[in-house]
Amino acid sequence: MPTTGRRTLLKTAGALSLAAMAAKDAFAQTPPVGTLPASRNTAPAKDVTRQLAHYLVNANYDDLPANARKEGVRTFLNWVGVAIGGSHHQTVDIAVSALAPFSGPAQASLFGRHERFDIMNAAFLNGVSSHIFDYDDTHLKTIIHPAGPVASAIIALSEMQPVLGKDFLNALVLGVEIECRIGNAVYPNHYDVGWHITGTAGVFGSAAAVGKLLKLNEQQMVWALGLAASQPVGLRESFGSMNKSFNPGRAASNGIFAAMLASKNFTSSDSMIEAKRGWANTISTKQDYNEILGDLGKRYESTLNTYKPFACGIVMHPAIDAAIQLRNENKLTADQVEHVDMKVHPLVLELTGKKIIHEGLEGKFSIYHAVAVALVEGAGGEKQFSDRAVNDPTISALRGKVNPVVTPGIDPAQVDMTIVLKDGRQLHRTIEHAIGSVEKPMTDQQLEVKFTDLADGILPAATIRRVMEACWNVENLPSVAEIAKMSALT
Amino acid sequence: MPTTGRRTLLKTAGALSLAAMAAKDAFAQTPPVGTLPASRNTAPAKDVTRQLAHYLVNANYDDLPANARKEGVRTFLNWVGVAIGGSHHQTVDIAVSALAPFSGPAQASLFGRHERFDIMNAAFLNGVSSHIFDYDDTHLKTIIHPAGPVASAIIALSEMQPVLGKDFLNALVLGVEIECRIGNAVYPNHYDVGWHITGTAGVFGSAAAVGKLLKLNEQQMVWALGLAASQPVGLRESFGSMNKSFNPGRAASNGIFAAMLASKNFTSSDSMIEAKRGWANTISTKQDYNEILGDLGKRYESTLNTYKPFACGIVMHPAIDAAIQLRNENKLTADQVEHVDMKVHPLVLELTGKKIIHEGLEGKFSIYHAVAVALVEGAGGEKQFSDRAVNDPTISALRGKVNPVVTPGIDPAQVDMTIVLKDGRQLHRTIEHAIGSVEKPMTDQQLEVKFTDLADGILPAATIRRVMEACWNVENLPSVAEIAKMSALT
Repeated sequence: MPTTGRRTLLKTAGALSLAAMAAKDAFAQTPPVGTLPASRNTAPAKDVTRQLAHYLVNANYDDLPANARKEGVRTFLNWVGVAIGGSHHQTVDIAVSALAPFSGPAQASLFGRHERFDIMNAAFLNGVSSHIFDYDDTHLKTIIHPAGPVASAIIALSEMQPVLGKDFLNALVLGVEIECRIGNAVYPNHYDVGWHITGTAGVFGSAAAVGKLLKLNEQQMVWALGLAASQPVGLRESFGSMNKSFNPGRAASNGIFAAMLASKNFTSSDSMIEAKRGWANTISTKQDYNEILGDLGKRYESTLNTYKPFACGIVMHPAIDAAIQLRNENKLTADQVEHVDMKVHPLVLELTGKKIIHEGLEGKFSIYHAVAVALVEGAGGEKQFSDRAVNDPTISALRGKVNPVVTPGIDPAQVDMTIVLKDGRQLHRTIEHAIGSVEKPMTDQQLEVKFTDLADGILPAATIRRVMEACWNVENLPSVAEIAKMSALT
Repeated sequence: MPTTGRRTLLKTAGALSLAAMAAKDAFAQTPPVGTLPASRNTAPAKDVTRQLAHYLVNANYDDLPANARKEGVRTFLNWVGVAIGGSHHQTVDIAVSALAPFSGPAQASLFGRHERFDIMNAAFLNGVSSHIFDYDDTHLKTIIHPAGPVASAIIALSEMQPVLGKDFLNALVLGVEIECRIGNAVYPNHYDVGWHITGTAGVFGSAAAVGKLLKLNEQQMVWALGLAASQPVGLRESFGSMNKSFNPGRAASNGIFAAMLASKNFTSSDSMIEAKRGWANTISTKQDYNEILGDLGKRYESTLNTYKPFACGIVMHPAIDAAIQLRNENKLTADQVEHVDMKVHPLVLELTGKKIIHEGLEGKFSIYHAVAVALVEGAGGEKQFSDRAVNDPTISALRGKVNPVVTPGIDPAQVDMTIVLKDGRQLHRTIEHAIGSVEKPMTDQQLEVKFTDLADGILPAATIRRVMEACWNVENLPSVAEIAKMSALT
């Protein structure tokens, strides 16, 4: 059992997602597509569930625009990386031991592990694993982590029935699309009141994607969405405990449960999302059905997905980005640095103001550590927030030279950094949007670096390379199951 | 759509400041009670989850007062009857076929059937079966059907690990107690807005009861309740579809899932029920924590459980009761009846005003049918709401002679019935509280008649008798599993 101290730390960890929200709101970017009125109920609440089901049942891979396909592939590759990366965390070990006695046939792999479970339990476990580091993808408009509930479900299913790569990608994009759209319809009220939106909207994504691969007819898809609506998962109060990563995992398995029952004609309401006592009215004080049905098949929320380059809250990302840029451009070493001055938004110190730290997890709440380790190691991955990194003498000493100053006019997305060197030089960098934002997405190469870093030590280097290549090539695979099999230990 | 103070706040507050508030909240160490209007909280929201866990972990069978033990036994017997009775409904057939490919080891029985499933799936399926006829027990203060989520879970567990009868009864009473108390804390707002409270409160009952039998320590019980809070089930919009009986079943399996993870130290928040962004605040606009913690171990909500004598909505029960009484006392036959006049509450016609009916299920929404079939057959069981009964010519003809009249001053619990006979006699009966109400509970003998009627045609008569005897004797059984095994087909 974790000690109280550990618990406190874990509790604090959850706040970083809130920082993400703050940062996102503060970015104040206009919604990129389909500008919608802010007021509630801009579309009549008629046949929402059925129209959504109709769309899902009829949407084909060939309908996907290139950017949706491209972002779907990137979403998947990033998800596989984080699922492998988290797979040996204590949280997964515990869940595996708790659920093993109840698992059905060994239908599906666990990423990065050797155990096999039935597809529902495997989806749960991979979903947990992929969220443990809070390092998975983010739909910034809703703070949904879209891949967890959806990819966990359909990759498990793909080991039970053969799934063509293009069908897989289509289901993934559709699942992500549906959960983000449903999330948009109720965000922010739904999130503000306390729901972990990844688990509540995510179950729709899982049910929709699994239902698509099961080739449900329209009525069955309506029921699958209804049974999904009956199983929302997760409250924000659990942030900082294992229960947080429980949520996308359980959303994934609940979605499979819903779709499997619907595939045998287990019925639900025909209007579970929009009815007076349906999902949206019960679970939120805001319902904007235009967000669900508007421009279906034309605008793709899934193209707005983002990936974290750094394994910590988004509020520190601008500073890490600046530090790495200046380090690399100037080939800096720690002994050259006199001190680092930074103009930051108040949230940076509010959320990540820890100066004295001893454990890796504490590093995620220390802007001092984040900048120091970025200068020394040129990265901000999970390894840079380990006990090893936090207790490294060089990094530890450099932390004392980092001086963040709250400065009016600095947005949470921004930082203004000046590194003063011992030789008197001053290196300056302003970041408007950190790497990993919608405005400045991670490159494919950066995603590979992140993936490799996460999988290192779990899979052999050659396997890591093969898995990444298969992910990039997912649309052309005759059976997606091979990715799951390659990603498991034998 | 309801207007709430919360929404007004959201509409007027800036996005960034809200986010900043959210971030601060996550760091707040103090309980959130002071942040809520006094009118919404009648008890301090401090350590609710922990105090509840403390109680659960320490409550012994010997602490139970006689009336709680007695009502626990009646609750269990009634539940076994309805679980057997529903077991061959299409809803269960479908769910069995959908889930069979994913079931783990054949750990637990299905009541009234021959298949065996792992305990989580068995709990789900028995929970579905027990609610199909809407004929299970009711905690009238909250309209929770308490046994479904709890009994389904622990009877399945009892086939995996030996459970003494007295421990079983203790866990059952505690599970029912916890779900009803948590239901009281948020009822009616929580139900009014759209939640199917049996599924949302029920998951706590399942987790608590399973956790008790797993002998969780206090911290583990806190986590089990937290993981339960993360998995509410069911919306009222699904009423009238298979999704309704899905809800107690899924609450049962979710509770096992929560307790099993907690038993291996899978963590959650320490204050998931009462925290600012915990269960009660997220899922209801009313939170009365006195209902959860007040007089724990002194007053037992479980003693208020009731059992339906008739397989239809409670609103028709007074009329059916009156009709059966007059029929039996006067040895009436249908051909003697000229017409039936009844003074009723408006809800009777609003909810059960169908005159023209062709299918059994429609009979449950026809006060005309309910009275007619009660006069002809002297009962109101599931068989009286079958296609056979609805299409019986004698009953059908008699329906046309039933005249309900909405009358001011008549309470929903009441009816004033006058049967005018062809020979000119008038038979009159006023019902203040129908049989099955808290004020006039079903007798043990009546529970046996109901049980026998439900199990007839599924289990042999001798087995039905043996199962009932085992239920009455449950406290003394060396292993409760024998009831599950006896109730299954071999």
